[in-house]
Amino acid sequence: MNVIVIGGDGYCGWATSLYLSSRGHDVTIVDSLVRREWDREHGLESLVPIASTRRRIDEWSRLTGRTIRFDDADVTDYDALCRIVRACKPDAVVHFGQQRSAPFSMIDREHAVRTHLNNTIGNLNVLWALHENAPRAHLVKLGTMGEYGTPNIDVEEGFIEIEHNGRSDRLPFPKQPGSFYHLTKVSDSDQIYFACRIWGLRATDLNQGVVYGTVTEQTALSPALANRYDYDHIFGTVLNRFCVEAALGHPLTVYGRGGQTRSFLDIRDTVRCVEIALEHPAAEGEYRVFNQFTEMFAVDELAGRVARVARERGIACEIAHVANPRVERESHYYNCVNTNLRSLGLEPTLLTDETIASLIALAQEHASRVDLSLIPSRIAWHPGEAAPEDSSAVA
Amino acid sequence: MNVIVIGGDGYCGWATSLYLSSRGHDVTIVDSLVRREWDREHGLESLVPIASTRRRIDEWSRLTGRTIRFDDADVTDYDALCRIVRACKPDAVVHFGQQRSAPFSMIDREHAVRTHLNNTIGNLNVLWALHENAPRAHLVKLGTMGEYGTPNIDVEEGFIEIEHNGRSDRLPFPKQPGSFYHLTKVSDSDQIYFACRIWGLRATDLNQGVVYGTVTEQTALSPALANRYDYDHIFGTVLNRFCVEAALGHPLTVYGRGGQTRSFLDIRDTVRCVEIALEHPAAEGEYRVFNQFTEMFAVDELAGRVARVARERGIACEIAHVANPRVERESHYYNCVNTNLRSLGLEPTLLTDETIASLIALAQEHASRVDLSLIPSRIAWHPGEAAPEDSSAVA
Repeated sequence: MNVIVIGGDGYCGWATSLYLSSRGHDVTIVDSLVRREWDREHGLESLVPIASTRRRIDEWSRLTGRTIRFDDADVTDYDALCRIVRACKPDAVVHFGQQRSAPFSMIDREHAVRTHLNNTIGNLNVLWALHENAPRAHLVKLGTMGEYGTPNIDVEEGFIEIEHNGRSDRLPFPKQPGSFYHLTKVSDSDQIYFACRIWGLRATDLNQGVVYGTVTEQTALSPALANRYDYDHIFGTVLNRFCVEAALGHPLTVYGRGGQTRSFLDIRDTVRCVEIALEHPAAEGEYRVFNQFTEMFAVDELAGRVARVARERGIACEIAHVANPRVERESHYYNCVNTNLRSLGLEPTLLTDETIASLIALAQEHASRVDLSLIPSRIAWHPGEAAPEDSSAVA
Repeated sequence: MNVIVIGGDGYCGWATSLYLSSRGHDVTIVDSLVRREWDREHGLESLVPIASTRRRIDEWSRLTGRTIRFDDADVTDYDALCRIVRACKPDAVVHFGQQRSAPFSMIDREHAVRTHLNNTIGNLNVLWALHENAPRAHLVKLGTMGEYGTPNIDVEEGFIEIEHNGRSDRLPFPKQPGSFYHLTKVSDSDQIYFACRIWGLRATDLNQGVVYGTVTEQTALSPALANRYDYDHIFGTVLNRFCVEAALGHPLTVYGRGGQTRSFLDIRDTVRCVEIALEHPAAEGEYRVFNQFTEMFAVDELAGRVARVARERGIACEIAHVANPRVERESHYYNCVNTNLRSLGLEPTLLTDETIASLIALAQEHASRVDLSLIPSRIAWHPGEAAPEDSSAVA
């Protein structure tokens, strides 16, 4: 299959590009490398050093004999996007090319607007580029489970049958996004659904949970193929961050009471889920949603597991409940459906103590690169309401 | 009350600004006049000539002794917006300042993107400007009934109580917007709801139906106060367009079968609804939705009424079912709730034969200004599917 991976240099995008290439697909990465620029802008750096895109791709070619093409282009540049789509004639486009951090979008107005411009206009461009140049290609778009928020009912996959006043309809599942970033993902979903209805595009919206882990079979082949491992308060996903904190002897920073329950998956399942979507494309005009996660955990439960695993390996580990910089429910009902991907063959990689231990070990290996000042959150959803000085360390 | 009306030079905005001023409020219009520019860009013109903004305001001052301030600024210019908000210290901001035509947003990618930039970034800017400069001001935002689409269940006002698997929650009503324009309005609603939740802003989202009529008590005071009367295929709302077609002896152009049912209201009710929202502001942190319409009509029913009224006044009038340029259901269930505004005192101005006759008469008065070539739609939702040559005139 001829596949364009937009954002193929990023955390999930890189792992996916390698995996799809290893499975025999012809992969073209389209990436503006703006994610690396945001690291520089905010003084961040992946814990595990990552090679340049060119070096990564060369190393992959050297080790496997397989070619990944790379186009340094931004989805907000429509002409470039069209040129690439016309040249590549893709069977499918996997779209990861978005600003993916909720805290980044909440820094200030400028970052909220930048997130909207990048994500919403980029997504519009992808839809128009396919409509005008490759109308039969299958769009696989990364959404997020965060689009749904935490409703008091079970979260279905994109749509819900609603009965009301004696009538019924299958309607888009109501969304309650929790940041300007999440708002852009909801807007994307609405746009894609519309494009399928009016243009007959075929699309799969992968509402992904929080991803943990950094290593896949392919990234492990060489240090030059290593994936990014973010632990900072902007781009660090929660379990990865806890493992780095544990490795460094830093208390695990749980925001608020920690009762926030979310959906999670191992990055090795991310790449497999994308493959499953590609292998079973949506029909012409079909917009379908797969909830892409394998397990649900409360944040304090995850912290407890990381702390236990660390202690069992002789590392002293504390849990700190810090003032929650976000505005979110800290205790709530949460139950999400994820049968679509399972029924198409996903065999979940459940979170094991070994996975946690390996993440801690990886962080220990690169401990000298950690900047502890990047861990505490300085980005509040409502400045003034949640101040860092409210923090209290709890065993 | 100190009120900023963003988009106060437009169709609904101008009528509202005059009305609010006549009711004793201090009105500041913020408008970039880009709507007048779009007329020039597409070779359009209001059937009734409209004076320049300056001339309008001077005339209002001359006739009533009341001052309306005017700032020529664009909502996408954040610094300008903040400067105005700080200077004005508004009790409320009424936000009409958006690209409001579905066909305009469907012309091509560039117009879709321009609509998104103007509407979505503009709305973000309004929210941030209030948050940073006037956090207690009441935001009254114009949404549209078109956000809901045409679900097979009753349309509630913004939220719906959903029971599912033995649990229940009050959640945002599912949206199925039917154009890139409508998509921006859905995104606006999500943004405003979010801003109320995290920042404690107070907001009323007025999901307005299709507006008809052009004359209010205030605009009738002088030709220099006249409101715009759009009859073209881009900005002309359906009943206004039918009345112009009737006046000119042009067949009434019904898109497709005409079973599309929509919500409607007289512009004299638009201005009153805004006043009601202002008089009963949302609470701190409250996001509420009022469905702002008074009656529901199918398009062919409206065409039939206009044709009858025209014929009763001696005008030969035919109805033409032309190929539908839009992708939409032409026969569907439609029932929307509108109790919020009614319960706060709205007394509906129902559509009468006299109103239709007066719109026809106004069009006849200005008949020499009509360009008939502007009536047939040239903007298809899915080019190739609905071609103008499929048109067939039916009595």
